[in-house]
Amino acid sequence: MAPVAYLECVHCHKRYSPAEVMYTCPSCGSLYGTLDVIYDYDAIRKTFRKENLLKDKTPNHWRYLPLLPISNKDFIVPLSAGWTPLYKNLRLASTWGLRDLWIKDDGRNPTASLKDRASSVAVVKALENHARVATAASTGNAASSWAAFTALAEIPTVIFVPHNAPRAKIAQLLLFGATVLQVQGTYDDAFDLCCEAAEKWGWYNRSTAINPYLGEGKKTVALELAEQLNWEVPDYVFIPVGDGCIIQGAWKGFQELYQLGFIERLPRLVGVQAQGASPLVQAWESGSNTVHPQHPNTFADSIAVGVPRDQVKALRAVRQSGGQMVAVTDNEILEAIAILAKECGILAEPAAAAAMAGLKKLVESGSLKDSPSVAVIVTGNGLKDIDGVLKATNKTPIPVEKNLKEVAEKM
Amino acid sequence: MAPVAYLECVHCHKRYSPAEVMYTCPSCGSLYGTLDVIYDYDAIRKTFRKENLLKDKTPNHWRYLPLLPISNKDFIVPLSAGWTPLYKNLRLASTWGLRDLWIKDDGRNPTASLKDRASSVAVVKALENHARVATAASTGNAASSWAAFTALAEIPTVIFVPHNAPRAKIAQLLLFGATVLQVQGTYDDAFDLCCEAAEKWGWYNRSTAINPYLGEGKKTVALELAEQLNWEVPDYVFIPVGDGCIIQGAWKGFQELYQLGFIERLPRLVGVQAQGASPLVQAWESGSNTVHPQHPNTFADSIAVGVPRDQVKALRAVRQSGGQMVAVTDNEILEAIAILAKECGILAEPAAAAAMAGLKKLVESGSLKDSPSVAVIVTGNGLKDIDGVLKATNKTPIPVEKNLKEVAEKM
Repeated sequence: MAPVAYLECVHCHKRYSPAEVMYTCPSCGSLYGTLDVIYDYDAIRKTFRKENLLKDKTPNHWRYLPLLPISNKDFIVPLSAGWTPLYKNLRLASTWGLRDLWIKDDGRNPTASLKDRASSVAVVKALENHARVATAASTGNAASSWAAFTALAEIPTVIFVPHNAPRAKIAQLLLFGATVLQVQGTYDDAFDLCCEAAEKWGWYNRSTAINPYLGEGKKTVALELAEQLNWEVPDYVFIPVGDGCIIQGAWKGFQELYQLGFIERLPRLVGVQAQGASPLVQAWESGSNTVHPQHPNTFADSIAVGVPRDQVKALRAVRQSGGQMVAVTDNEILEAIAILAKECGILAEPAAAAAMAGLKKLVESGSLKDSPSVAVIVTGNGLKDIDGVLKATNKTPIPVEKNLKEVAEKM
Repeated sequence: MAPVAYLECVHCHKRYSPAEVMYTCPSCGSLYGTLDVIYDYDAIRKTFRKENLLKDKTPNHWRYLPLLPISNKDFIVPLSAGWTPLYKNLRLASTWGLRDLWIKDDGRNPTASLKDRASSVAVVKALENHARVATAASTGNAASSWAAFTALAEIPTVIFVPHNAPRAKIAQLLLFGATVLQVQGTYDDAFDLCCEAAEKWGWYNRSTAINPYLGEGKKTVALELAEQLNWEVPDYVFIPVGDGCIIQGAWKGFQELYQLGFIERLPRLVGVQAQGASPLVQAWESGSNTVHPQHPNTFADSIAVGVPRDQVKALRAVRQSGGQMVAVTDNEILEAIAILAKECGILAEPAAAAAMAGLKKLVESGSLKDSPSVAVIVTGNGLKDIDGVLKATNKTPIPVEKNLKEVAEKM
């Protein structure tokens, strides 16, 4: 448990106490004034050591409690997020000329996406704040995750999703008991409406980026990756990017490990967006710190974001790490879904396969020099979007009558 | 790694060497002559100790390798099955007057069902047997699990599913690269056809019950439950039952732990079937050792079984444990889906929620005396059958325009 020292605006660098500000910098606004969560690292260093983790059998991301913004463990809700498997893939590494290829399956979280890492932290904050109603805008995964955690915390929850959120995510939301408002517009519209409602009615808001604690939960994917590799980080980490909260969270995780002396170097982060929703790729390419909004057009719903809410931190993460942003087409994502399924036994939802598509693209373009080691984060399970993943195969079931002759003929 | 001492027919008790027989007793046939896998427990006792597990950080069911029928670790495929979370639920325990209530979420397996425990073992056997083609008949979960593991093992796979297998499970199969034969009939028809094909063409068959090693994989759910409870087993364990392979596997796991001195008593096992497919409940109630086939009629597809293939071992498990079989209606299953989602944050597929429905039924009928401790096994994730789980709620998303007035009015 790490008491937060202060929150710092990414833009004007003003510092706030956690009691003073809940979301973003009042001066710089919600898009440019996102807040970094800063701890007292000297204090943490005294008690949080690699050796403790060696003995620690905690099978979820609370093994990193000393680096998480939780002051009261009693508010932790019993749903076990994180500590997802990391697989070494020899076949693809060899084909692609990589020294090592690691795939982290974060679809193995409680509600089948990485977002559970953030929700598990945010629900503690909601309880600390005596939230009477919880809310979030989401393309689907963050919401369905949030709804599971708030159900256990017994906080009534109102969710804003875009009109085209996949049916499976809606089903999760409804069954976890959330009120689901399907906004006639894009995710970006749903986001704005949710923030207005939260402000007007005082709801606790888990919408991405504006809530500084979400990245704290998400950073645990980096802590785990490093620990699972015995603190030898790979040269590159590929991460799907919509709003940019996961990639900035991962970067913060790696930086903190570096600062604490757990790792000796930092990986380059490669953020992968769908071409139809790639404003961060454009900003990165043009060297800009601000993003031109885009009307999203991709089937990868979880990253179909036109106004990336964590743009400042995301661009900072990619640049500081010496990494890059890359865009992939929907067809490249489909190909990556098929590769992940057949070569890794992992069914990834479209957005989750984008990172793999980005890796393949950089391999084929020759951009990855000197046989680097690479990790790819799969952020959500394909069962969340069956219509989407089925586009990745042209195979169909073959109807057969109950006799072997039919089987022999039709196969 | 435990070399198998011998395989023993459950009916005539004849012993076979593993090299001699692959599936069932040649004398007693595939339904009544299923085989028990027997190890040299004295040898196991010498090296396999509780203390070893205390230090063991293996985050999957290979932590129980000394009790599994694997002789060559090189054949293990890198998909991490088991070591799924066990949650204590205080609220429901209190409402229902239970000393303790534990929920084990086995939907957290690689392909989102408990069946991965069996597939991970079976694929090793397939590789040991130099299988050129793998096959299975399945209501969907066993098949989609098998297809993921055989894809990694690079064994071409032919799957037989009934015509009504849920779309998500078909999607998994196709993406993992299996050839999917959709049999115009029930699961029972698909099962028979698969066995004919396997015999005729020499395919390695992972169809349940006839393959003695599947129960060995499934037993790890019991080993884990016991270890997670620090070797204090609950009074009752509730398990959904279709073919009966999971419940017999769990019983074997508990028995082996007892025999090895890891646990001091055995739990009662309660097998729960859907009323529309409850031949084992009928057999149990009438005291019979054989089952009258039934035409299955339930929406809980994973347990829609009319001819339970593991009937002998399943009935033996329930009787030896002093447990019982119970039938629940589809409506009771729907209610259990809603309870698991809202009270436990777990979205269960219909069959997986059956165990919870059975518990509620026995609680309400007053059959559970003296505030027992209870564990419930959730065998698969609800994302595998969205149409099914959506029947458990009458809530729907509320369409709203992009303004707060609409939100206020429509909520």
